Parts: sequence; C-alpha cells; structure tokens
Amino acid sequence: DRTIDLAVISGDGIGPEVVAQGLKVLTAVLPQDVKLETHEYDLGAKRWHATGETLTDEELERLKAHDAILLGAIGDPGVPSGVLERGLLLKLRFAFDHFVNLRPSKLFPNTTSPLAGSPEIDFVVVREGTEGPYVGNGGTIRKGTPQEVANEVSVNTAFGVERVVRDAYARAQARPRKKLTLVHKNNVLVHAGHLWKDTFDRVGREYPEVTTDYLHVDAATIFLVTDPARFDVIVTDNLFGDIITDLAAAVSGGIGLAASGNINPTRRFPSMFEPVHGSAPDIAGTGKADPTATVLSVALLLRHLGYETEAERIDEAVTTDLAERDTAAARTTEEIGDALAARVAG
Amino acid sequence: DRTIDLAVISGDGIGPEVVAQGLKVLTAVLPQDVKLETHEYDLGAKRWHATGETLTDEELERLKAHDAILLGAIGDPGVPSGVLERGLLLKLRFAFDHFVNLRPSKLFPNTTSPLAGSPEIDFVVVREGTEGPYVGNGGTIRKGTPQEVANEVSVNTAFGVERVVRDAYARAQARPRKKLTLVHKNNVLVHAGHLWKDTFDRVGREYPEVTTDYLHVDAATIFLVTDPARFDVIVTDNLFGDIITDLAAAVSGGIGLAASGNINPTRRFPSMFEPVHGSAPDIAGTGKADPTATVLSVALLLRHLGYETEAERIDEAVTTDLAERDTAAARTTEEIGDALAARVAG
Ligand SMILES: CC(C)[C@H](C(=O)O)[C@@H](O)C(=O)O
Ligand SMILES: CC(C)[C@H](C(=O)O)[C@@H](O)C(=O)O
Repeated sequence: DRTIDLAVISGDGIGPEVVAQGLKVLTAVLPQDVKLETHEYDLGAKRWHATGETLTDEELERLKAHDAILLGAIGDPGVPSGVLERGLLLKLRFAFDHFVNLRPSKLFPNTTSPLAGSPEIDFVVVREGTEGPYVGNGGTIRKGTPQEVANEVSVNTAFGVERVVRDAYARAQARPRKKLTLVHKNNVLVHAGHLWKDTFDRVGREYPEVTTDYLHVDAATIFLVTDPARFDVIVTDNLFGDIITDLAAAVSGGIGLAASGNINPTRRFPSMFEPVHGSAPDIAGTGKADPTATVLSVALLLRHLGYETEAERIDEAVTTDLAERDTAAARTTEEIGDALAARVAG
Repeated sequence: DRTIDLAVISGDGIGPEVVAQGLKVLTAVLPQDVKLETHEYDLGAKRWHATGETLTDEELERLKAHDAILLGAIGDPGVPSGVLERGLLLKLRFAFDHFVNLRPSKLFPNTTSPLAGSPEIDFVVVREGTEGPYVGNGGTIRKGTPQEVANEVSVNTAFGVERVVRDAYARAQARPRKKLTLVHKNNVLVHAGHLWKDTFDRVGREYPEVTTDYLHVDAATIFLVTDPARFDVIVTDNLFGDIITDLAAAVSGGIGLAASGNINPTRRFPSMFEPVHGSAPDIAGTGKADPTATVLSVALLLRHLGYETEAERIDEAVTTDLAERDTAAARTTEEIGDALAARVAG
C-alpha cells in the first residue's frame, strides 16, 4: 500500500477552516489503497504570541521527513511585519529550496472578474522562489538618524535562474499553446536583467516549438488587465512574481481561488502547497472563507506527488462546482468543501 | 514680460508628433505677455544610431539652464535595452535630482477602462525618482559562466525617503479627500521597508488631517483593479511606482492619457515632463498617436512653473474634449491637438 505522509500547517485566521476542507477533499479523492497520514505543526501567529518562536531548528528538521506540506495561512495583525514572513514562510521556502513557485491563473465559469467582458484567462506563472530581492541580503546603517541608509540586495545566480527557466520551458512545452513570456525589467535592472534574458534566450534554443516573448514588468501589468489571454506560461523573478500573481489572481476572480505550490522539483526536500490568500482574521470563524484555493492547492500537491488522475479530478470538480452552483446563494466554507468532496468521490 | 525657456526633447517614434501638439496647446494657453522660447535637443535613438552618443556632459550642462524640459518619447527596437534608459532618461532624472515622479491617474468621461462598471478613478502617485533599485548600484561577476552572479542594490536613504514622503503629505493635505497610502513590501524588504514605514509614520504626525494607509505592493495591485476609488495620493518607491503607475494608467483608460512630471521641487534643476507611453514605432507617422498625455504633461509643467490658471484650463479642455467628442470617429494626432488648442484659447 502507498502512503502520503503530509505535514499540515493550518496556521491562523481562516487557515484551519480552509485546510480542514482541503483535507476532506484530499481524503475523498484518494484511492482506497493510498493511506493518508497527516501531522499538524503548531506554527504561526498564535504560536509566536505564546512562545516567541517562529520555527525551531528541530521542527525544520522534522518537516524534512514528510512527503509534502499543506499550509493554510499565517499571520495576524498583532505580529510585527516581517517576523513570520522571514521567520517562517520564507524560511521554509529557502530551507527547502522551493525554487519553483507555481501559480496558475484561470477564470473559472460563473466567476466574476473585475475586468469588463470576462476575457479568457488560463495561464500559469512560474515565479522564482529562492533568489532575487527576497534573499534577505540587505541592511541598515545609522538606523533612526537623518543619515540612515537602508539597502536591499537582489541576488541572481546563473544556477538559480537557469533551473527555474528550464522548468518554465518544460511546462510551456507541455501545454497546447506552448508560449513562454519572460517578465523582468532589464532596461533598468541591467545586471540581473541581462542574466535572466541571456539564460532565457539560450535555454530557448533547446525548445524550438515554444514561442517566446519578453515584457518589462510594468508593461506586463498593463497586458494583465487589457489582454490576459495573451499569456500561457510566464517566468519571472521572485519579487516581480509576487506582484503579478496577486494581480493575476485579482483579474481571474479573486485570491479566494488562487492556488500555489512552492515546489522543489528535485524532491530533495518536501514541497509546500498553500492558497495565495492570507489569514483574513476579519472573517475567521464566520464560515465565509472560500476553501477553493486550498482545494486547488491540494490538486497541485497531488500532481507533484505523481497522482495526476486525482489532481485532474479535483480541478474538474472545482470547475463543475463553480459552473453549477447557485450564484445567488452564498455557501459556507464547509458547504463548499462538502460539495467538492462529494464530486471527487463520485 | 515673462519668459518660459523650454528645452524640448522630442525624441523618437511618435515623440515629435505628440510634442508638436503639446507645444501647440502650450502656445495657445499662454497669456500674451508670456514669451515662450523652445530649444530642441537632438537626443534619443536616432542620435545614438548616428553618433553612439546618448547625452554628452556639455548637453547636460546646457540643459541645466532651461526653466523646464518637455520630453516626447525615447527609443526604438534597434537600441539594446538599457542604453537609452540608463544613458539618457535615468541620467536626466538622477542628474537633475527629480525626486518627485508625479503621475496622476484619472478616468476621464467617455473613456473606456478595462475594468467593469467604470469605477471612480482620481488619484495621484508620488513615485520616488532618485533612489531604490534604480540607482544602478549592481554588478555581475563571472559573466556568461555557470557561476555568474548578478546583483542589484536598492539604496534608500533617510534624506531621500523623507523628502518625497513630505511632498506626498503636502499633496494629500491639499486635496479634498486628504488620504495618503504608502505602498511598499515591508514584510519582505524589511530594511528599506522599515525606513519607509517609520518615515511615513513620523512625518504623518505633522499632518493630523491626512488619513493614512499602508499596503504591500502586491495587495495594491489587487485594489487597483477591484477598488481604485480607494486611492487619493499614493507614495511609493521608484520600482514599485514604475509598476503600479503603468497599471494605474491601464485601468484609467490607457497610457495614451497618462501624464508625468519628473520634478525637482527645490527648482535647483529643471524639471522634466513627459507622457508615460513610449515611442510606439509601429504607429509613428500614421497620425494615430494620441497627444493627450503630452498635453496633460504640459499642464503639469505649467503648474510646476506657477501657471496654475493655465494648467487648469488645459485640464478642463481635456475633460471637455473627451466628454464631447464623437467616440465613433477616430481623430488624428493633429485633430486632437487642434481641438485642445482651440478650447484653451477660447
Ligand atoms: C507573505 C509574503 C512573504 C509572501 C511573498 O511575498 O511571497 C506572499 O505575498 C506570497 O505571495 O506568498
Ligand atoms: C523607460 C524606463 C526607464 C522608465 C522607468 O522605468 O522609469 C519608464 O518605464 C517609466 O515609467 O518612465
């Protein structure tokens, strides 16, 4: 019998609510012969308030042993900005070398886009996850004085850029439209931009069937609202990816539907799957949270672990569920989870 | 008699066409007793192709003597990325210490937004113009090898951040809604973010009437498409400002209408006014370019030089012109310029 040994970080706010539904759907979709083991890790704002800890070395070590991590949402307004981001979320992405931050954007049926005319939207952003301005190589001198200088260093390596660019080409090659767009700002960030563009062009020669395109990040935001149908696969740096995937989620119906995977394709460390949305403390406990993004993240998780059929079943269940639901009636977190679980089991 | 001594950099592609209309409207709006002197500088892609020069020290020195600079658009696809940006556009912004990059966004009547339901949009972005990741403090080692490392350093100083934050507060204070939003990414770029947020909070105490708000840049892109009406004045760093002002232009009817000022409020050096759009070589010479963004940039220029009444007249002319035009009939660059010139003169 096969086993999926899953670490679960439910986290704060609506995190535990959406994770519960994600696990419900996961349990429902798995074949009889696959055993699901879940191990909850008490991490996030609550834990930090209680103990001052974000993630201990011992926990990091234990997390390594799992097949994958499912994360709900982290944070509450009482924690100073940066503490849980640097101490927990980014720490996991860096420690487990999650160099592919995968963020699909799709406008599902019956879903309202803020864009007029509901354009076709179906693309995926491959965001680099371990370099760029996220590395934390910055510092401050003369803090709090009129002579303060605060620097942030974006670090980009040939090794780091090439592996994520290769991943993006492989994904583009596997899709019907076979189109890959590099998003950067190589007219201003000339050093990093040069490395990205050169790597993109060089690796592209190995993928003659993939059509390529380059856009500055500012221009990319324009096309995301005026012509999102032009995108198929986008590859970009960590910070640009952060920005355009939130915008992409917004135009394709909101971050309530946006899934993501922090993936280590080498499988040396467990990959981590999480909805793009945050802990939304204002609606925690009200049953208003939409667990769909978490459920879609579970599909990414299954696909990563080799359960392609099951991943497809979840994707289809979400599409049908949105298409067939009564848009006039709001559903609770649990009702959505139940509906999806029933569909994938059926 | 008063004189406006204007340097003009018409530039490439549609640059000369839109600048011609901008100057036409400027001439029409100025009172009889104001003499307009224009001095064209041959800068841009054409010049670079011919001579290999972007901007000589001698030209930079001469430019200093003018009251202001009107710029059309720079660049063509034959110039390697970064050459004219670093060698001309950014060189001017840095040399003339244009620390306030002012970019108003307004949804004019009769203008189509890609957003559904044509929301209220009327805000202004105060983008820092002389620091951040634009400083050019980066470099590459082991270029072209598998061991290449390319770094980009974002430099942020108390001096640089405080002066632009102060400018933004003053602008917010002068507007009816008196609201200022800081956009940054202080949960990840903790050093720069700390400096920005601390400065924002500290200076804010001097402006008790101004309502303040903070948004991470990724969240800001969401609100720009789901609720742009929430913004009044935004202050942000150079790179975030670049990204969100293109998005802001897109949601408020396109970059054909987006004006900008690269302003040195101390008046120690001339400020520079330019449409946000580029040289659009594909439509150069066809009469399809919309000169409105340039005309609105002329209004910013007049306001900066103290011609508030004339600036208002241009803004009103643009609003009326868009409201009253026949949306079914496309107008040429010149027709739009003529219409606006007639309105401001009348
Ligand atoms: C919470 C934060 C560190 C994170 C990021 O910036 O990557 C978030 O915005 C995201 O997109 O996952
Ligand atoms: C051309 C480029 C250097 C410039 C910038 O990045 O500032 C442009 O995008 C702008 O917004 O004015």
